[in-house]
Amino acid sequence: MKVLITTVPFGDANDLPLRLLKKNNIDYLINPLNKKLTEAELIEIVEDFDVIIAGTEEISKKVMHKAQNLKMISRVGIGLDSVDLVEARKKGILVSYTPDAPAPAVSELSVGLILSLIRSTHLSNIEMHRGNWHRYFGRRIPNCKIGIVGFGRIGQGLVKHLVSFSPEKIFVNEINLDKLSEYSDKVNFVSKEFLYENADVISFHVPLTSKTKNMVRYEHLIKMKSDAVIINTSRGGIVNEDDLYKVMKSGHLSGAAVDVFDKEPYDGKLNKLDNIILTAHMGSMSKDCRSTMEIEATEEAIRFIKGEKLIGLVPDDEYEVQYEGL
Amino acid sequence: MKVLITTVPFGDANDLPLRLLKKNNIDYLINPLNKKLTEAELIEIVEDFDVIIAGTEEISKKVMHKAQNLKMISRVGIGLDSVDLVEARKKGILVSYTPDAPAPAVSELSVGLILSLIRSTHLSNIEMHRGNWHRYFGRRIPNCKIGIVGFGRIGQGLVKHLVSFSPEKIFVNEINLDKLSEYSDKVNFVSKEFLYENADVISFHVPLTSKTKNMVRYEHLIKMKSDAVIINTSRGGIVNEDDLYKVMKSGHLSGAAVDVFDKEPYDGKLNKLDNIILTAHMGSMSKDCRSTMEIEATEEAIRFIKGEKLIGLVPDDEYEVQYEGL
Repeated sequence: MKVLITTVPFGDANDLPLRLLKKNNIDYLINPLNKKLTEAELIEIVEDFDVIIAGTEEISKKVMHKAQNLKMISRVGIGLDSVDLVEARKKGILVSYTPDAPAPAVSELSVGLILSLIRSTHLSNIEMHRGNWHRYFGRRIPNCKIGIVGFGRIGQGLVKHLVSFSPEKIFVNEINLDKLSEYSDKVNFVSKEFLYENADVISFHVPLTSKTKNMVRYEHLIKMKSDAVIINTSRGGIVNEDDLYKVMKSGHLSGAAVDVFDKEPYDGKLNKLDNIILTAHMGSMSKDCRSTMEIEATEEAIRFIKGEKLIGLVPDDEYEVQYEGL
Repeated sequence: MKVLITTVPFGDANDLPLRLLKKNNIDYLINPLNKKLTEAELIEIVEDFDVIIAGTEEISKKVMHKAQNLKMISRVGIGLDSVDLVEARKKGILVSYTPDAPAPAVSELSVGLILSLIRSTHLSNIEMHRGNWHRYFGRRIPNCKIGIVGFGRIGQGLVKHLVSFSPEKIFVNEINLDKLSEYSDKVNFVSKEFLYENADVISFHVPLTSKTKNMVRYEHLIKMKSDAVIINTSRGGIVNEDDLYKVMKSGHLSGAAVDVFDKEPYDGKLNKLDNIILTAHMGSMSKDCRSTMEIEATEEAIRFIKGEKLIGLVPDDEYEVQYEGL
């Protein structure tokens, strides 16, 4: 069986995944374009492969149609918005993922972005590199109401860190409140509307689905406090990019941090605004988490090839989300 | 009595200090140059004043000689490196300060700078604003040995926050170990040499004295790990700027964050290096801490003018440090 590794970088932080493939005499090809593939680019190269060790590139119906031999997709990471699960199930293609590995890295990055935004360190850094001295006023977390939209692994990790800074309040919006009772003394569960209107810091940690696509538009952004800051380390498309640009260009919101984009690599107009921190989809890019994700996804692919029991199969509720979106 | 307010901004985050002065019919002048005064500039304007509500500008023997009426200095903040305490005592000029107020803001800023440095968010932000997409690898705090040099209010605050991220180790270098036994299960007290050679993240939280001036020079920086990051939010002059430039220009150290400079406002060559985060002495610049500092220093000045008991007088050990440096 032949393995296509589409995600890049791969094997950089730790070459164990490559050594595992070699040790098992598995033929593999690493994404020759060394960037996130478009649907068309993936279609060009996918034909012969049995297994894809996949990043966030779109594995659509068209891709699966071309990939006649494809039997298994092993996602390096958690989001499944890029994989047409409905089509995969129809064609009998198995899909596994690594949902736990990236979470700690995304939580930590998010805390760092919050601390930069509320103290304007990113702005001062830009100005200082231009030779301009200006002492920006900032806020501390004890004077901020923190809003977290989506309270899975990453949102919960964020709370673990933030409590050591004693936030004024933590508002959480989450649809599924099962198993969250332990948090009831630390956070206030509220509606999205309440959170948007009352939080000083708003951080998004939801998956990209038909329900969350374009969830945050002009009408939501404009209702936020004029000096609020927002952070999106989840998926591009959750916060509408054009609307965010329009709102911030007008002087509403005091800052934003955006790590994920509709189209990646990103080179759009958000980079005209100094008060938006832009990072290159680096949520999971800590050496330890990235290595764990790559190793887990590779081991799962090897288990599949050797006919062993899979341990990272995507659960049914992820499929249901996509069936609901049809 | 006439009050000169040299620190700027003043009364911006909260105008209570100005209202207090007015309510007490106290004549005051706010620094007309609206920037940190040089010794010469201060000498130009200081002559008539009885009290200075002071920032970090140098209040030297020469300044005190010119300020014939000067009876009291009320420092907005904690560092006393800028005030010639020996001369003040000789002339009977009282000196008060606000040592507790800035600490929480400095600790929070330092955590934010650490999180930026170890994930290269500052680098990605610069590159993204130039239209360049590069996914930088980073480290997480559980994989970092944190070194803290100086373990007063700020260093201790840093530990409070960092433990929620579970650092691999926390090394602390501190001369005065009195009253620190409660930390012995959280941190390892070590020598500076050990800390420099073994820590991945090195953050400085010492006062500027004759002993700490130029404490970190080429020979110390070069012994640090090649991928270590350093943070200086204490005082300019602790880490030699020329040596830091030389070492980082050569590719040693993976990042640095510098908030304080030999000469402020700063516009020196460190701003040629993208991997140094530069901020404009913003450690205490959160609205709450800055307001508290200004209010406390103003209230102390008013107490002095009204002949009331002072509560923020600088303790003897601060004077001893300067006597030792003679």
